[in-house]
Amino acid sequence: MPAKGEMLYEGKAKKIFLTDHPEQVIVEYKDDATAFNGQKKGQIAGKGEMNNRIASIFFKLLEAKGIPTHYIDTLSEREMLVKKVKILPLEVVVRNIAAGSLAKRIGWEEGTILPKTVVEFYYKNDDLGDPLVTPSHIDVLELATPEQLNVLESLARDINVYLKAFLSDKNLLLVDFKLEFGIDSDGNILLADEISPDTCRFWDADTREKLDKDRFRRDLGSVEEAYEEILRRLGGLTR
Amino acid sequence: MPAKGEMLYEGKAKKIFLTDHPEQVIVEYKDDATAFNGQKKGQIAGKGEMNNRIASIFFKLLEAKGIPTHYIDTLSEREMLVKKVKILPLEVVVRNIAAGSLAKRIGWEEGTILPKTVVEFYYKNDDLGDPLVTPSHIDVLELATPEQLNVLESLARDINVYLKAFLSDKNLLLVDFKLEFGIDSDGNILLADEISPDTCRFWDADTREKLDKDRFRRDLGSVEEAYEEILRRLGGLTR
Ligand SMILES: Nc1ncnc2c1ncn2[C@@H]1O[C@H](COP(=O)(O)OP(=O)(O)O)[C@@H](O)[C@H]1O
Ligand SMILES: Nc1ncnc2c1ncn2[C@@H]1O[C@H](COP(=O)(O)OP(=O)(O)O)[C@@H](O)[C@H]1O
Ligand SMILES: [Mg+2]
Ligand SMILES: [Mg+2]
Repeated sequence: MPAKGEMLYEGKAKKIFLTDHPEQVIVEYKDDATAFNGQKKGQIAGKGEMNNRIASIFFKLLEAKGIPTHYIDTLSEREMLVKKVKILPLEVVVRNIAAGSLAKRIGWEEGTILPKTVVEFYYKNDDLGDPLVTPSHIDVLELATPEQLNVLESLARDINVYLKAFLSDKNLLLVDFKLEFGIDSDGNILLADEISPDTCRFWDADTREKLDKDRFRRDLGSVEEAYEEILRRLGGLTR
Repeated sequence: MPAKGEMLYEGKAKKIFLTDHPEQVIVEYKDDATAFNGQKKGQIAGKGEMNNRIASIFFKLLEAKGIPTHYIDTLSEREMLVKKVKILPLEVVVRNIAAGSLAKRIGWEEGTILPKTVVEFYYKNDDLGDPLVTPSHIDVLELATPEQLNVLESLARDINVYLKAFLSDKNLLLVDFKLEFGIDSDGNILLADEISPDTCRFWDADTREKLDKDRFRRDLGSVEEAYEEILRRLGGLTR
């Protein structure tokens, strides 16, 4: 078990700590929840623990499928050991069903099945409100090389295939999700950050009930219960 | 001279009329000016005539360079004969210097020279406010095929090279501009619509004085004078 060192940085949902291993950091999941670029703030009781478990399940699944991820081990209720990476300042969003900003942008009603999977890139920059960017913007801002961009898109599409199939077995629709990638000390592109109800839209496949952070964003109530339901369906509620 | 038939449609800046030739339409340039997706409305005295002349000069230049355009002939003060096309619902924006929405999106000060030419696509849809779209959005909305998109981007970049060089000789900076393309009856992609101070940002190369619709958008005054100055520099003021 690696020794937890000083805090490297604190984000809106997680803290990152150095360890005694230079290439490994500890992610500590918080109960804090934010929405609309930090304008809405709150707490979701038990979220840190639930997201740590949910993300662990997803990272293990993806590793088993051959996706390179930062995941090493789950250390405690709230702590995950991961490979330290330099995060690419891009949020990669994959969408199977129209919702949120895509529904607004293209004028399709929320819930419309997309005839083709949509992959979007957003510039991870809080001051600018995480704007949508095109390959041309990514090029001029030097956020990623065209080759890296192809790798990100192709990994994101593969991840979507694996997650969608896995969730379908749990009677869940994977509406959309956000990924972050980073570069490790060997120059490899790894899936990093988290995969959780904070970063995905999950709907019950029969009722289309929302089981994710939209319950917090849109004040729908039963927020904790939704996260717990996801954890239960993923088989992670028994300790 | 083709006979002018009934009006096909009226846009914010131009009217399109049928002619007695099924593959040709007449563009009539109006003095009406709008900005911010039609929220701001006004008139610019003489704009119709000036834009007709300015666009004629640009279309002739581009035809001479081998760019396929809809331009056939300039018929009168306000009228241009063009090939009828089915307009692709995409606005293709080419940028050499950060300004307007790009400056806001990527957080670069207006006036920053872009190290690489930026090409953007917007979904031509007034109800949605002409949103920025990525290749993935264009694909799912079927606004253009990936092959068409490549042609549009490559034509837009070529047009930029020709216009920039031409304007540089007139001591003008081509900051950015918007193009529309259409498909003619033979299935060819043609540059259509207009190229004018309504659809381009032109700055004096020495003073960086704005000589385009930003004078109207931002209430800078001397709007007519700016359009006239562009026409003068392009050598189109002598009748
Ligand atoms: N393996 C990793 N190595 C280094 N940083 C990481 C790793 N995984 C995630 N991060 C970063 O940790 C930070 C904290 O996460 P989070 O609280 O979600 O931040 P944010 O407020 O930016 O969303 C983020 O900047 C995230 O990109
Ligand atoms: N060659 C052409 N054939 C058919 N339509 C055209 C052609 N060139 C331009 N148009 C269309 O004419 C319409 C009128 O122009 P405009 O007043 O600029 O409209 P808008 O209000 O959409 O900006 C636009 O929809 C434009 O795309
Ligand atoms: Mg985050
Ligand atoms: Mg127009």
